[in-house]
Amino acid sequence: MPVKMTAALLLLLLQLSGFFGSGTGGKVLVWPMEFSHWLNLKTILDELLKKGHEVMVLRPSASLSYEVDNTSAIEFETYPTSYSLSELEEIFWESLKKYIYELPKQSFWGYFLMLQEMVWVDSKYFESLCKDVVFNKELMTKLQKSRFDVILADPFIPCGDLLAEVLKIPLVYSLRFFPGSTYEKYSGGLPLPPSYVPVVMSELSDRMTFMERVRNVIYMLCFDFWFQTFNEKNWNQLYTEVLGRPTTLSETMAKADIWLIRTYWDLEFPHPVLPNFDFIGGLHCRPAKPLPKEIEDFVQSSGEHGVVVFSLGSMVGSITEERANVIAAGLAQIPQKVLWRFEGKKPETLGSNTRLYKWIPQNDLLGHSKTRAFITHGGTNGIYEAIYHGIPVVGIPLFGDQYDNIVHLKAKGAAVRLDFLTMSSTDLHTALKTVTNDPSYKENAMRLSRIHHDQPVKPLDRAVFWIEFVMRHKGAKHLRVAAHDLSWVQYHSLDVLGFLLACVLTVMFILKKCCLFCCQKLTKAGRKKKGE
Amino acid sequence: MPVKMTAALLLLLLQLSGFFGSGTGGKVLVWPMEFSHWLNLKTILDELLKKGHEVMVLRPSASLSYEVDNTSAIEFETYPTSYSLSELEEIFWESLKKYIYELPKQSFWGYFLMLQEMVWVDSKYFESLCKDVVFNKELMTKLQKSRFDVILADPFIPCGDLLAEVLKIPLVYSLRFFPGSTYEKYSGGLPLPPSYVPVVMSELSDRMTFMERVRNVIYMLCFDFWFQTFNEKNWNQLYTEVLGRPTTLSETMAKADIWLIRTYWDLEFPHPVLPNFDFIGGLHCRPAKPLPKEIEDFVQSSGEHGVVVFSLGSMVGSITEERANVIAAGLAQIPQKVLWRFEGKKPETLGSNTRLYKWIPQNDLLGHSKTRAFITHGGTNGIYEAIYHGIPVVGIPLFGDQYDNIVHLKAKGAAVRLDFLTMSSTDLHTALKTVTNDPSYKENAMRLSRIHHDQPVKPLDRAVFWIEFVMRHKGAKHLRVAAHDLSWVQYHSLDVLGFLLACVLTVMFILKKCCLFCCQKLTKAGRKKKGE
Repeated sequence: MPVKMTAALLLLLLQLSGFFGSGTGGKVLVWPMEFSHWLNLKTILDELLKKGHEVMVLRPSASLSYEVDNTSAIEFETYPTSYSLSELEEIFWESLKKYIYELPKQSFWGYFLMLQEMVWVDSKYFESLCKDVVFNKELMTKLQKSRFDVILADPFIPCGDLLAEVLKIPLVYSLRFFPGSTYEKYSGGLPLPPSYVPVVMSELSDRMTFMERVRNVIYMLCFDFWFQTFNEKNWNQLYTEVLGRPTTLSETMAKADIWLIRTYWDLEFPHPVLPNFDFIGGLHCRPAKPLPKEIEDFVQSSGEHGVVVFSLGSMVGSITEERANVIAAGLAQIPQKVLWRFEGKKPETLGSNTRLYKWIPQNDLLGHSKTRAFITHGGTNGIYEAIYHGIPVVGIPLFGDQYDNIVHLKAKGAAVRLDFLTMSSTDLHTALKTVTNDPSYKENAMRLSRIHHDQPVKPLDRAVFWIEFVMRHKGAKHLRVAAHDLSWVQYHSLDVLGFLLACVLTVMFILKKCCLFCCQKLTKAGRKKKGE
Repeated sequence: MPVKMTAALLLLLLQLSGFFGSGTGGKVLVWPMEFSHWLNLKTILDELLKKGHEVMVLRPSASLSYEVDNTSAIEFETYPTSYSLSELEEIFWESLKKYIYELPKQSFWGYFLMLQEMVWVDSKYFESLCKDVVFNKELMTKLQKSRFDVILADPFIPCGDLLAEVLKIPLVYSLRFFPGSTYEKYSGGLPLPPSYVPVVMSELSDRMTFMERVRNVIYMLCFDFWFQTFNEKNWNQLYTEVLGRPTTLSETMAKADIWLIRTYWDLEFPHPVLPNFDFIGGLHCRPAKPLPKEIEDFVQSSGEHGVVVFSLGSMVGSITEERANVIAAGLAQIPQKVLWRFEGKKPETLGSNTRLYKWIPQNDLLGHSKTRAFITHGGTNGIYEAIYHGIPVVGIPLFGDQYDNIVHLKAKGAAVRLDFLTMSSTDLHTALKTVTNDPSYKENAMRLSRIHHDQPVKPLDRAVFWIEFVMRHKGAKHLRVAAHDLSWVQYHSLDVLGFLLACVLTVMFILKKCCLFCCQKLTKAGRKKKGE
């Protein structure tokens, strides 16, 4: 016994001294992600590498985002996929075109029908990605043998959770959002009251009128129905087949140990959270580095007026000529110089104050003292760079969470929103004039920046902390709400309320019978008395 | 404009460089608390002093806990109270006796009736404490002139929130628990589903059977009704009078900027939280210091068996002779030496292995390598010292949250629970044998200890961070859920659901009318045709 005690104490002392905290040699497996999802995660992976962990990323042979980066120590495990690169590109570009140019024009029901169709195509591809791994015996044996300590995944592409179950290792999620109210279901019990928590993709704020609250509840019901009906069925089948027991996508996802949410309360509207949620928005942001000479010269040439930075993100290649001309004409009217990340034919209306770039050092530009505003599609990474550096935003959302990001920033007084398909040159000009001339936009952007910077631990350090925590403790079960083990009826206490209602009704019924019986007795006695 | 921009940038740079984070010269006002509430808060106050802030504690002229501590830089503002010290002592000791010796014997309804009566007396005293401040013009003028940056309070004794409203300064709460389900109401929107979140003081765990869930819902309803009916009315009147506008206790409390909860997920069952909640349990714990020589010698004399530490806390003076003898007889049977914090007549059955002390260095003893178990009433401070040092517990809860603390620790496998009024010497002996001989108790205590120590920032540093944050930013509005502005009906979306139901019923009614109309038309046409 004393030996056991000493060993236990030694363990505690090692723990206290940060022995396990120094990050010696954990093995991290990463489920593939694309575009900004991947860029965001890569920041965490690089930090994990710095701390001495091994990182292996599963890479589909056909992929749009993974460049082999020889400078990084990330190990890639490439596996053959059913889709060819050309098929994948076709799916992707078709989908993107629909998101940008067709979906916003739809009516309420048309929106859901079109979204359903698109998600169906995406989901089929994601499913094939999953099958290509879990049914690849050689790969699975290799993964089993590698004895990873944790798997990192983005629930946007399911299967990371399935892999965690198969390999019996803890799971850490990196997540931007779930559409609709599906959070509660997938997280295994996060209650988000629709009265003040706007459903993601509803474009509502946390202060809603009565009719907006009605809209929010309808959105919630629609998204729930839509997800349940069109997205989950196939996944449930696949998960059941792989695990060899009846299960569902949501049950498996809800087992995640830690949820790293890629926002923070500077951007989010406050809402309840669970103990295993941490908000790590902006983890990729860093102080500005000096600009390349040519760009610095152009920026300096702007004088007192400063510059405007403009990018629609890494996913959108070229935009239509008509839209490009409208935008260029709008930009030509402002006194600032403009740096525009642009691909495609040079717009005819391009002003002398605007320069086009295939790539811009966005974070460094936003951190430059001359930068007055940021025109952005509202991707979360870019939005966080704007918040980090306190730059007001003109938002032109294109798809996904971008609408919500801009709605949030607008509600916080740091952005003006424009509609990509319908905005005119004057709209753009007016919006830019507003955010650069009305000091409230800069003040609000700075307020958000101060909130962002004033955290007890930096977002990136917290992300790494939780991944290492999960490796040290083989999970984080102590943060998991017991809601996981309850059915929907039990979780909402409907069985209890039914039981209590039945009790009350029974008591009332008995009381009524008793009263009737007494009344009858009394009447009878009265009659008898009368009869006497 | 450029000057404004430069100033704003300078502000950001200062922020980034931690200028405001170094804690230069904030002014902190503290609403009085008693016993363990005060001890816990004092740790935070001492840390605030170390960081260069000024701390002023309001001290009622009659108080049980505030010793004038000349070594501390805490400033006390003593104000005259309506109650004399002897009245206060009578209320306190009477109440304590009832809590320990009478309340546990009550039936379900008797429990609520007795609790109501006792809370009524406490509440009257707390109210007088409040009135003695807010109607003391001289004191209020002095407080107004002092221009505090933040007020710290424990909602256990209301009025700190009222003072924050009157003085128009941010409010930080330090809280152990709200009874029943009143959390949601007082915090302004923390949803705690009764299906897996046991109501505080229900003594249930987070994994409940159907009948336990029924009990939990009944507890919830009872506590809600009880609080609403017996506790709030007077406070609401007082708050309305002082603020000069209709308001309530709960509305005012819900305005708190930050809630520092005095537990953590090592002890708590996981449940949803709000963004302005932080869990700082165990902030007073620290590594063990060497023991006084006499105690160290006694501890060392225990040999391989080690020692057991026993304390029923600072509030309980002496216990009945009968109980003391039962306990002493139980302790006499174990092979360990026992250090018992004890006041009163020496029990006749006291064994040679047990020594009585008026005071013990509890934290240092629990951190001693010879300590095998801790017998405690289950006060949160003591429980956290046990968790911090990984010591298994024999819990003898006496009142308040102590029952729940022990239930939690028992559910996590680190404690055995005994009933103070009914336990026999053998029960105590068996319980001690179990926690010292069954290694699972030590292992579980060590697991909780590892969880406790493995946090990105220490609890005390987080508590101080949030108080400083609130001072720097003049509140923490960005963490406040928008639920505050909604009525009960709106918050639960009952108006929206009613509206949607009305819409569905109207549509069904119109459809039915249309169908009937069509049927009639068709029948008529058929008849006409037949008639031809």
